[in-house]
Amino acid sequence: MLAGFSRRQLLTLIGMTAGSAAMYQAMTSLGLAVESGYKGRIKLEGDPKGASVLILGAGLAGMVAALELRQAGYKVQILEYNSRPGGRNWTLRGGDTYTELGGATQKCEFDEGLYINPGPWRIPYHHNGLLDYCKRLGVTLEPFQQLNHNAFLHSTEAFGGKPQRVRDIKIDFQGHVSELLAKVTQKGKLEGDVGKEDQEMLLEALRSWGALDKNYAYVKGLTSSEFRGFAKDPGGGLGAEPVPSDPIALTDILKSQLWGNLANFALYEFQTTMFQPVGGIDMIGKAFAKEVGDLITFNAKVTKIEQNDKGVMVTYEDVSKPGATQQASADWCICTIPLSILSQIDINVGAPMKAAIDAVPYVSSVKVGLQFKRRFWEEDDLIFGGVSYTNLPITQISYPSTGFNAGGKGVLLGCYTWGGPSSYELTSMAPEERVRKAVEYGSQIHPQYKDEFENGVSMAWHRSPFTLGCAGDWTEEARKEHYDNLCQIDGRIVLAGEHASYIPAWMEGAILSSLDAIDRLHKRVLKG
Amino acid sequence: MLAGFSRRQLLTLIGMTAGSAAMYQAMTSLGLAVESGYKGRIKLEGDPKGASVLILGAGLAGMVAALELRQAGYKVQILEYNSRPGGRNWTLRGGDTYTELGGATQKCEFDEGLYINPGPWRIPYHHNGLLDYCKRLGVTLEPFQQLNHNAFLHSTEAFGGKPQRVRDIKIDFQGHVSELLAKVTQKGKLEGDVGKEDQEMLLEALRSWGALDKNYAYVKGLTSSEFRGFAKDPGGGLGAEPVPSDPIALTDILKSQLWGNLANFALYEFQTTMFQPVGGIDMIGKAFAKEVGDLITFNAKVTKIEQNDKGVMVTYEDVSKPGATQQASADWCICTIPLSILSQIDINVGAPMKAAIDAVPYVSSVKVGLQFKRRFWEEDDLIFGGVSYTNLPITQISYPSTGFNAGGKGVLLGCYTWGGPSSYELTSMAPEERVRKAVEYGSQIHPQYKDEFENGVSMAWHRSPFTLGCAGDWTEEARKEHYDNLCQIDGRIVLAGEHASYIPAWMEGAILSSLDAIDRLHKRVLKG
Repeated sequence: MLAGFSRRQLLTLIGMTAGSAAMYQAMTSLGLAVESGYKGRIKLEGDPKGASVLILGAGLAGMVAALELRQAGYKVQILEYNSRPGGRNWTLRGGDTYTELGGATQKCEFDEGLYINPGPWRIPYHHNGLLDYCKRLGVTLEPFQQLNHNAFLHSTEAFGGKPQRVRDIKIDFQGHVSELLAKVTQKGKLEGDVGKEDQEMLLEALRSWGALDKNYAYVKGLTSSEFRGFAKDPGGGLGAEPVPSDPIALTDILKSQLWGNLANFALYEFQTTMFQPVGGIDMIGKAFAKEVGDLITFNAKVTKIEQNDKGVMVTYEDVSKPGATQQASADWCICTIPLSILSQIDINVGAPMKAAIDAVPYVSSVKVGLQFKRRFWEEDDLIFGGVSYTNLPITQISYPSTGFNAGGKGVLLGCYTWGGPSSYELTSMAPEERVRKAVEYGSQIHPQYKDEFENGVSMAWHRSPFTLGCAGDWTEEARKEHYDNLCQIDGRIVLAGEHASYIPAWMEGAILSSLDAIDRLHKRVLKG
Repeated sequence: MLAGFSRRQLLTLIGMTAGSAAMYQAMTSLGLAVESGYKGRIKLEGDPKGASVLILGAGLAGMVAALELRQAGYKVQILEYNSRPGGRNWTLRGGDTYTELGGATQKCEFDEGLYINPGPWRIPYHHNGLLDYCKRLGVTLEPFQQLNHNAFLHSTEAFGGKPQRVRDIKIDFQGHVSELLAKVTQKGKLEGDVGKEDQEMLLEALRSWGALDKNYAYVKGLTSSEFRGFAKDPGGGLGAEPVPSDPIALTDILKSQLWGNLANFALYEFQTTMFQPVGGIDMIGKAFAKEVGDLITFNAKVTKIEQNDKGVMVTYEDVSKPGATQQASADWCICTIPLSILSQIDINVGAPMKAAIDAVPYVSSVKVGLQFKRRFWEEDDLIFGGVSYTNLPITQISYPSTGFNAGGKGVLLGCYTWGGPSSYELTSMAPEERVRKAVEYGSQIHPQYKDEFENGVSMAWHRSPFTLGCAGDWTEEARKEHYDNLCQIDGRIVLAGEHASYIPAWMEGAILSSLDAIDRLHKRVLKG
């Protein structure tokens, strides 16, 4: 800090002399802004002098590397197992087919314009790297609804199995907590924890925040109903007076365990404003492919990765012509193959990286998309986007964040498990059986399912031939022992992907991992 | 309830025999759903036998009445003061001009595609009447962001005037409250308020909900940072470990009074999922006008409303040809003129209705739209939609809920007051002075304002020639004494509009009021 200057004065000075962008940089360095994992658009300065890079995988990590390295002067090629770009950045639409391990093939029968994203599907506002690529590549975004106060929280063990509105559990819990704390505050039981003057402000704040009445009670009345909604909403004309609703008792909320779902709406990763690309998450992968698609060899199943002090040679099989192996080589290799697959490929890296590759299990996850004749969740239940959570094996139902209030058919994400026994159980089923189960379970929350269901498609990530799981599942111990070894450049090979990041399973992890890898690789190349 | 049947069994039975729509009706009647002020699409059955209705005002209330009454067989005409339909349902775009009382004319200079909504601008998910008309009339909706965790809460009296992220105030307050309540619970101080078994669940719930650590403390660490965000976000590759952030102390939050803004995000009226029409709020008024525009006489300033037992005669002046009065008559009259104006018009209704018309003052409100060279709130501050609140006279800054992450110019709602001294003070200024003030105040929150500002437009509702204020400002006492008298049919005249509803200032109030009025009027007409 310059002597004699306050932060504010300093900022003003910077703002006046250097403009607002400089000021924002200064604000960041003064600790007024969060430091992002994304350091801004990468600058790979210096001439790589014709060096070549072979990228394994045309997911987001691979395509980011290809885009930036080609621009920096490298000769780039990509090998990709699938017949399409994007990897897990993928959308299923009517007409698409997908064959999982075990050989079962599904044909998606959704109507035109409807889709599900079997992999990633939402973008937090602080995933700056991904947002910046969306901007550069012209991917149009729309808000993704995570918290919908009118969606449901459901437990077969609570409220007689009757779904509760998120709103009621969320606001009633906050109200009861506020009332309890106000009571002990008034009784002088906070002692030294809160100063006397603060206690008065605390009471005032709890009343406002907790929707308490003038006696600091959370009770039925217009005050609480202005937050939790009414038994009868206010209307117009005669007989239009609102009727207050009954809060749920604290003991019922506590016993229901439904409060456990509230964190899903408050986490940094799930807070407003979240996004999704208009038209499906694969708009991102497709936008990258528009830039680097010419570099990709599809249907290339890597079977061996060899390096020596001159370069890297990769053996692969054309999956459309089984048996015929081919080879590709380059000075350097960026490998974005998921560790679940890579651990089964012959690769001559040092023992630390090899141990790291073998150390990370992959999360099991199942998604099911269900098409219905009409958007009954909007028409009957006034649920516009957002997620309902349940203790049933389907775990959650997510409503589309697009096409609101327009009527017509719709596709729900009718099941989305993440780890746990349900994932394994559903994975063990045939695809159509998963769909059947999702309809059966979901109809406990939305009885309209039975009349309105048309068709469905399911994705069990542990049966995915190109990932064998959903995402790297790091434990704290594994991170300590293996993470840095995984990310180091080993000879002429460096790994990238969500598994090589602290944001596993998110697209941003893949992108930041890739940017860090190519930054270090480029420096290594320049050193010669 | 049928004897021997549980609710669930009954519902299943209904569902099986009568389908899901019938089941939903049954769920509603069993208390599983909220009773809306909107009773579904209105059915005006029975022949009005050529009866005619004169509607005063082509705002939403007037156009709803026109649409439904014409369809029911009435002869309908509308008189409208403005030269456009919609009333307060209105959008200002580049090229539009507006002359306020006092004669000052503004020309809006926004770039193509940019706008502000000087009046209503957002739609709660439970405003079923409005949503249903949007659906019927083909108005495309998109989500309106009210709560953005990354927007600011600002007070000149707190944190040295430095804006705080909504996220930090919201999550830290919840964390501290949870910690305090957990502490007294552990010390056994809740006594009889919470049963022993519930206390253990309460502790568990507070830990989850309040982001407490294993000792029930709300402290710096990964647990709290997973909610409030990090000092350094997690990244990819090497050196990517997240760094936890420091929570704000409870005493600082309490003293800041910033907690007072949190209710703005939790109220039933402001909860997710909210909507706005794509392209501006006046898409709604325009959609109505597409249906009933042929019935509207524009530029018609009503000066007298007379009724006798045969019909209603209205005298009006063509404001484009001052001095020339004209007359219109019909069997019945639906008057949607704001009470602030109507109270100054000669109208021969009974004393109770006249007293009601005179009893309701109108809220003062000012909005200012500001165009900037770039969307710095997104680019620099990662604020995508939502509202920042401040104790400055501008009260709030609202960021556009559309065009996210695409760059280019943008228009902020740079001021939105609702009552209070600021509204009067700003109203007393010339339009360009309001804009200048909004820029000056706003730059305390966004220093980028000074470099990036281009042009602005302001709306002070108390200077609006067609409303003389923003919306009816009912007190509880006034409602008791006058509300029913206002809504009764007086002879051949019935009033409608947001002022004749329990949802003042909202478009839904105007619509529900109108539906109730025409429903009663129609019954009266059929009785003969």
